[in-house]
Amino acid sequence: MSRLDSVIRRLQAQRSCLDDAAGRIAGLPGIVLELGLGNGRTYDHLRERLPEREIYVFERRVAAHPDCIPPDDRLILGDVRETLPAALDRFRGQVTLVHADVGTGDVETNRTIAAAISAVIGDFLAPGGYLVCDQQISFPGAETVPLPDGVAPGRYIYLRKPSA
Amino acid sequence: MSRLDSVIRRLQAQRSCLDDAAGRIAGLPGIVLELGLGNGRTYDHLRERLPEREIYVFERRVAAHPDCIPPDDRLILGDVRETLPAALDRFRGQVTLVHADVGTGDVETNRTIAAAISAVIGDFLAPGGYLVCDQQISFPGAETVPLPDGVAPGRYIYLRKPSA
Repeated sequence: MSRLDSVIRRLQAQRSCLDDAAGRIAGLPGIVLELGLGNGRTYDHLRERLPEREIYVFERRVAAHPDCIPPDDRLILGDVRETLPAALDRFRGQVTLVHADVGTGDVETNRTIAAAISAVIGDFLAPGGYLVCDQQISFPGAETVPLPDGVAPGRYIYLRKPSA
Repeated sequence: MSRLDSVIRRLQAQRSCLDDAAGRIAGLPGIVLELGLGNGRTYDHLRERLPEREIYVFERRVAAHPDCIPPDDRLILGDVRETLPAALDRFRGQVTLVHADVGTGDVETNRTIAAAISAVIGDFLAPGGYLVCDQQISFPGAETVPLPDGVAPGRYIYLRKPSA
């Protein structure tokens, strides 16, 4: 499999998971968190699929396409290992969907980011809320959600917080 | 269509055109030119699909994944508007496939690059050779090749030099 094949497969898997989650949260009130804006593609996808939702974005430093930058009041700038815990009181229990795309080129950095998110993200989620992620993130009591058809096992983490 | 949808469609179209061209040149001797290495994905794809072919890469400044950098003797560094005409005597009539992925963020730069390639690329091609490109490139006598299924009209330029 070439790197071209690989990136196509990765992006299709990402879209499949996001579309699946967007369907599952229909009827469940709450906001969406995007951890890592990157080039803004998945933010653009989420706001297109979920036009009625408030989407808050955590990003260290914005480098996205100008069309894909969230409004100032929905953008939390800084290192997610610090900004996410700091935002817990604001968003606790209000989040129906978290998408985290926070992988960097550095394994140790990825590990500390995944640990920081894992430590608090369960408290952000509303009962029945979902997490879609490309890193090894989890939270206490998380249920595993079956990956959509065509997504290779292990490629994405797809979790649900049990309903109350 | 979101930017995530759009990039998936663009990469699938690119792969479809390259795979189609790789099939069409089977049995036709000659080398391959990759104009623009970028992150190296299409170079990786071409060398995987065409393991027996010599692939020469023209690139201004290498910024590809370390696994996707061609050997020194198949890498021509510099501005393609200068390096390509300078390489004509070396490669004249020996090329069965050119893949050009040379779009930059600047429309005027793209126009001058496309013009520079168009001025000489036909002389590189062997009779019956192919050009796949994301920019408005052409050459005298070029025949239009039907785009593969699923590739939107206009998304890629796909040309053939008539057989002698």
